[in-house]
Amino acid sequence: MALRATLKNKSILSGVAVMHMQNPPVNSLSLGFLTEFCIAVEKLEMDKSCRGLIITSSQPKVFSAGLDIMDMYGKNLEHYKAFWKAVQEMWLKLYTSNMVTIAAINGSSPAGGCLMSLTCDYRIMADNPRYSIGFNETQFSIGVPVWCKEAMTTIVGHRNTELTLQLGLLYNPSDALKIGLVDQLVPEDQVLATATQTMAKWLAIPDHARRIAKSMMRKPTIDKLMSIREADMQQYISFISKDSTQKMLGTYLEMLKKKKG
Amino acid sequence: MALRATLKNKSILSGVAVMHMQNPPVNSLSLGFLTEFCIAVEKLEMDKSCRGLIITSSQPKVFSAGLDIMDMYGKNLEHYKAFWKAVQEMWLKLYTSNMVTIAAINGSSPAGGCLMSLTCDYRIMADNPRYSIGFNETQFSIGVPVWCKEAMTTIVGHRNTELTLQLGLLYNPSDALKIGLVDQLVPEDQVLATATQTMAKWLAIPDHARRIAKSMMRKPTIDKLMSIREADMQQYISFISKDSTQKMLGTYLEMLKKKKG
Amino acid sequence: MALRATLKNKSILSGVAVMHMQNPPVNSLSLGFLTEFCIAVEKLEMDKSCRGLIITSSQPKVFSAGLDIMDMYGKNLEHYKAFWKAVQEMWLKLYTSNMVTIAAINGSSPAGGCLMSLTCDYRIMADNPRYSIGFNETQFSIGVPVWCKEAMTTIVGHRNTELTLQLGLLYNPSDALKIGLVDQLVPEDQVLATATQTMAKWLAIPDHARRIAKSMMRKPTIDKLMSIREADMQQYISFISKDSTQKMLGTYLEMLKKKKG
Repeated sequence: MALRATLKNKSILSGVAVMHMQNPPVNSLSLGFLTEFCIAVEKLEMDKSCRGLIITSSQPKVFSAGLDIMDMYGKNLEHYKAFWKAVQEMWLKLYTSNMVTIAAINGSSPAGGCLMSLTCDYRIMADNPRYSIGFNETQFSIGVPVWCKEAMTTIVGHRNTELTLQLGLLYNPSDALKIGLVDQLVPEDQVLATATQTMAKWLAIPDHARRIAKSMMRKPTIDKLMSIREADMQQYISFISKDSTQKMLGTYLEMLKKKKG
Repeated sequence: MALRATLKNKSILSGVAVMHMQNPPVNSLSLGFLTEFCIAVEKLEMDKSCRGLIITSSQPKVFSAGLDIMDMYGKNLEHYKAFWKAVQEMWLKLYTSNMVTIAAINGSSPAGGCLMSLTCDYRIMADNPRYSIGFNETQFSIGVPVWCKEAMTTIVGHRNTELTLQLGLLYNPSDALKIGLVDQLVPEDQVLATATQTMAKWLAIPDHARRIAKSMMRKPTIDKLMSIREADMQQYISFISKDSTQKMLGTYLEMLKKKKG
Repeated sequence: MALRATLKNKSILSGVAVMHMQNPPVNSLSLGFLTEFCIAVEKLEMDKSCRGLIITSSQPKVFSAGLDIMDMYGKNLEHYKAFWKAVQEMWLKLYTSNMVTIAAINGSSPAGGCLMSLTCDYRIMADNPRYSIGFNETQFSIGVPVWCKEAMTTIVGHRNTELTLQLGLLYNPSDALKIGLVDQLVPEDQVLATATQTMAKWLAIPDHARRIAKSMMRKPTIDKLMSIREADMQQYISFISKDSTQKMLGTYLEMLKKKKG
């Protein structure tokens, strides 16, 4: 597992970091990966010369497959707590970022992958009908955290969010564009180039005023989630440590093994 | 007046109840009908084998014409109070239902009829341009209860709701679909069959996780309405018992009589 | 500077006032103009015979260019306070109006001009691609007040508002219609006539019930803004009296002068 987070000042665009997620095979958001990711974002945040962040994948066909089930299965309470704290941290760090954040979604992005991209200011997706994005947790009997609900509602509205979360829907790129879950579709080989061009437009806006506007729009959601952060943690731990949840995850993991084998 | 609420486990779909509303001529939501309706829903809710509820009409051309004006005119305070309590109960029972609820809207559905269908998880309407759905109360000088506003805003957004409630708009099926007031249009004779097929898709989702998602999406609205339930009751009684309101309803009822005669 | 606010009972429509804004060259919302405007609206509000208000421009090509920068530059704290109080007043008076309010947008309407039109019940814009509407403050390093955010969110939703405010976007009429920022486009010479016809439709709705619906939809926003009114004032004064803000405005004004000269 490795995360390349490099500030490519020359090759891409001055003041813009491109975070290539590289956690084979499918960029699962494990405790280790999320920890590394948050530290990298925090460093960029404190680097005054860094004004924009593009998040993309180094793995083929997938942006991120979402939270790593291995961190949710057969571990102790301390582990579950550390993992969920990392999930909350990732959401908060990205959602409150002073940088312009763009998701260059060059592959499928279900569940936690969708959550990560929803925290960004703009979403560009590869126009490949085999890719999908959305929240499919419900299909696997897994509860969707409130962080997904809040971020998604502000972007695609209450009704689309309710349908997605109740039914565990994944959207192909064209349908995702239609409901506003992504902002733009481009051919697969142009995702990063388009993200870079888009970033240039966003950086032409004075930072200070843009940040005030971003903060004004997001503060109510942030305040709400901060106020229930501890309750959300308790709810997660209670859900994940239940016998029935663990049994269900065990069955799911065995199904995955058979599929591969 | 009769309400058929039968759990048709074999003829329709296992675990699905189809509520055929039958209160001739136009399925007015009277105190008697609402009381019977709520008891039926409550029974289904407690029946563990019942996972889905389809609401439709046995009357031709109309799903429900809305609240029964006879329960709002020339009665005493106790009656008004009992009636409004039944309206609130209907909304709460359906909006908080653990079952998958689908409105099979096989006819016009103004005012209270629209309110009832908005509480459901999904709305399928007969594609007949002579049918309409929406909130036309304002056109008849009647205030729209806050229950309509809250449910409608979460489904079609604030702007469409404001236009509808200020102007008392009814939409034909095609316009209703365009703003998202209904989810799907089908030929009139396929409304119930499509509702059944749709229900099968929803029931393929694990109940427990789906209910968590539904509750997460609806809890803020439910909490808000529960907290103003008593105030809403006082407001209704004060409005309906006013001389000017009663006079206006009297004029309206006489107009209806002349129209029929 | 002059504001013509005349109740044209015969020439236009009975009970409808048409406010022709006339503050050459671009209907800047100066302290003087806003004060006169608010007094005029208040008079109409208290006139029981006045049920509707159409706001339009007497200046060519512009509805209103927004807040007058001269009231934000090189003045003392008292002046800044009086100016911002007038801005808040304008928003509140229009947003809470009992009258049906229609913006007949016969020219460009950036920033404060957009804010004014968003308080209205309905927006009709001249279909001239050279005109634009939106909030471009961020492009000029100026913070957008919370009044813009709240009004815009209820009309075009959270996502469109976030993009607009972060990027300082102006929309041509066709794009403005697409996101719902205006309700209708008509040829330039028919803006006022269409506003009058639309007003007739709105006035066919009983006043009392329409006002209840309007108030029910807007009360949460009004309550929220009233509760932060003083904080918003402090924030504005702190921002506008900063050396960096004043310097930036000075540069901007010199740029404007050179452009003209």
